[in-house]
Amino acid sequence: MPFATRLDNVETSAIRELFKLLGRPGIISFAGGFPDSALFDVQGIRDAVNTALTEEPGAALQYGATEGHAPLREQIASFMAAKGVREVAASDLIVTTGSQQALDLLGKTLISPGDKVIVEGPTFLATIQCFRLYGAELITVPVDGDGTQTDALEQLIAEHQPKFVYLIPTFGNPSGALMSLERRRAVLEMAVKHHMLIVEDDPYGDLYFGEAPPPSLLALSAQVPGSRELLVHCGSLSKVLSPGLRVGWMVGPAELLAKATMCKQFSDAHTSTFAQATAAQYLKAGRMPATLARVRQVYAERATAMGEALRRELGDAIEFVQPQGGLFIWARLTGARGQLQDGGELARRAIDKGVAFVPGAPFYARHPDPATLRLSFATVGLDKIEEGVGRLAQAL
Amino acid sequence: MPFATRLDNVETSAIRELFKLLGRPGIISFAGGFPDSALFDVQGIRDAVNTALTEEPGAALQYGATEGHAPLREQIASFMAAKGVREVAASDLIVTTGSQQALDLLGKTLISPGDKVIVEGPTFLATIQCFRLYGAELITVPVDGDGTQTDALEQLIAEHQPKFVYLIPTFGNPSGALMSLERRRAVLEMAVKHHMLIVEDDPYGDLYFGEAPPPSLLALSAQVPGSRELLVHCGSLSKVLSPGLRVGWMVGPAELLAKATMCKQFSDAHTSTFAQATAAQYLKAGRMPATLARVRQVYAERATAMGEALRRELGDAIEFVQPQGGLFIWARLTGARGQLQDGGELARRAIDKGVAFVPGAPFYARHPDPATLRLSFATVGLDKIEEGVGRLAQAL
Repeated sequence: MPFATRLDNVETSAIRELFKLLGRPGIISFAGGFPDSALFDVQGIRDAVNTALTEEPGAALQYGATEGHAPLREQIASFMAAKGVREVAASDLIVTTGSQQALDLLGKTLISPGDKVIVEGPTFLATIQCFRLYGAELITVPVDGDGTQTDALEQLIAEHQPKFVYLIPTFGNPSGALMSLERRRAVLEMAVKHHMLIVEDDPYGDLYFGEAPPPSLLALSAQVPGSRELLVHCGSLSKVLSPGLRVGWMVGPAELLAKATMCKQFSDAHTSTFAQATAAQYLKAGRMPATLARVRQVYAERATAMGEALRRELGDAIEFVQPQGGLFIWARLTGARGQLQDGGELARRAIDKGVAFVPGAPFYARHPDPATLRLSFATVGLDKIEEGVGRLAQAL
Repeated sequence: MPFATRLDNVETSAIRELFKLLGRPGIISFAGGFPDSALFDVQGIRDAVNTALTEEPGAALQYGATEGHAPLREQIASFMAAKGVREVAASDLIVTTGSQQALDLLGKTLISPGDKVIVEGPTFLATIQCFRLYGAELITVPVDGDGTQTDALEQLIAEHQPKFVYLIPTFGNPSGALMSLERRRAVLEMAVKHHMLIVEDDPYGDLYFGEAPPPSLLALSAQVPGSRELLVHCGSLSKVLSPGLRVGWMVGPAELLAKATMCKQFSDAHTSTFAQATAAQYLKAGRMPATLARVRQVYAERATAMGEALRRELGDAIEFVQPQGGLFIWARLTGARGQLQDGGELARRAIDKGVAFVPGAPFYARHPDPATLRLSFATVGLDKIEEGVGRLAQAL
């Protein structure tokens, strides 16, 4: 069967092959990108859906506006306002079927075949594939412990004139990095100076362990005149409440939202109103602060435990920045004392020892660093974290 | 802001402008394409979601397989088997976010810019726009009271060598036409003879008013050797249970489903597991036959009432085939005795008289027939149908 030429640009990920092995009995998995199901506020969601079906059964079960269920758009605007985002009204955002769909709509709306897009190296794997399906040529900007290297970013913008720049400034998947306040400001100023559209993907920003991170680019844009009109912000309930609802959102310039809404009409008509009405009732019920406090605490303990175990068990064989939030430790094999320095090879050996993680190379759109690893602490209890890291040390 | 070139192929529909007028007080609307919210089995859906949250809270709220929630795929396979579809296992279908997403995935997977696709004239408006966004050049095949004219279709296939043929054989939107058994067989034989992929979109097949319609192309493919491998079938719960769930499905050749699944991974990761688990529990609970019986009866009464009123009030000014199922009457202004023959003009006049419908021209990808109208009887009570048709007669 002859498929569309755009499929020539992507391939089924090598990671999927790895995931097939995770079902083996006894495997401790640091490979997932999921939040922990055990932390879901099932009772809160049950109350929310029952309220929705009592108060607004028609709206919750009928076709809805492509832009999103109006009460949910209001609740999301309030949710963001509570995090310091000013002057974003319900009408300044559209609801998306998870933030994955926001990426898809950006690709559909903005990327013509051959257009360049700058992404972080490493970045979210599904972003790479999503944009490539629309024919994007991806350029990578390096990331360090303070996030995207903004000097390098400005050079790449000047050199490549990309269609837009895609960043995950806060606890990104896979890097876990936290972009500093200075660099955030630099990105917004750069956007204005070069008239460059910036996409901020922010599914993890609420999952901080100690102090709150610096304001999102969206929140900060109020301080950088002209930057709001060049900024797209993607949010999601997936990592903090439930991925199964598939409720995300996108804030952006009105003209872009209008085009994205048109594209969404022909993608899935609208996001499930059943899920949207449930999410709206959940937010309205005021349960989110307690839910966030709980997940932050649990993930913080697991992150600390994994960091300590890695330092203790793997010593100078590995280097990483201890994450201040999110779901991941991003690490690099140093090759010290002639030890293994290939993440893919370690992943294969680790499976045999009964522990899984994802090698880092596939997260690079270009110039992969084969020494990197992504380890998720999110779904593994403290005991199993210790045991899993011990197995990892044996696999080295 | 420079948008992607693919957006040059579509425009926001003229119908959307019309819909903005529907909020006027007192308007009787035959314009919608919605099922009637008053017929939703709210209690059944409430029971289903509560069961899902009790029995499988993790699965209902967590990320899920891109192909779909396994219990739902099983239930959908059983649902189709009860309608005479043989040898379609759960693994032969994927779940989509409404059947709109099935169209989007077909476009993404199959259509390269410039590819030709044959659709019915008239056909579903969002199909036209969806395929054009992927760069399709659409060819139209005429429809009559027995559905797609298959002789014309075969000529067009030979002439244009399209990528695929898209049909709504049963009570299609907007034509309401029912393809005869002979023509269904002819389509499948044509698929084999020309090695041509056929897409059967079937959201309305369960909404029949009297006898069941002829078997779907999917059911019939068991009788035409080689045709199953050239057939895609799209189904949906939207018209029979609830559009708000956004649960549809696509049956097709394994190779195509694999590519569509890859594309779906980067479109929305998966369809809401919350909605999928609810739909699975609903189907499992065995409530669907009673639900179908109820909606069939109500829509049948309304279709009869509208047909009788149109014949009585508009006489020879209008011609139509009385629908045997679905949500629509597709009619044509005859211009008899010098009366108005332009559907768009009648729509404008009708709004002033307090009744709305959708003119038919936008439903044609090519060669629009400006005399056509689409009238939905689905959401209007019997009294209002009489009154609305009366107003329509005044507007003529």
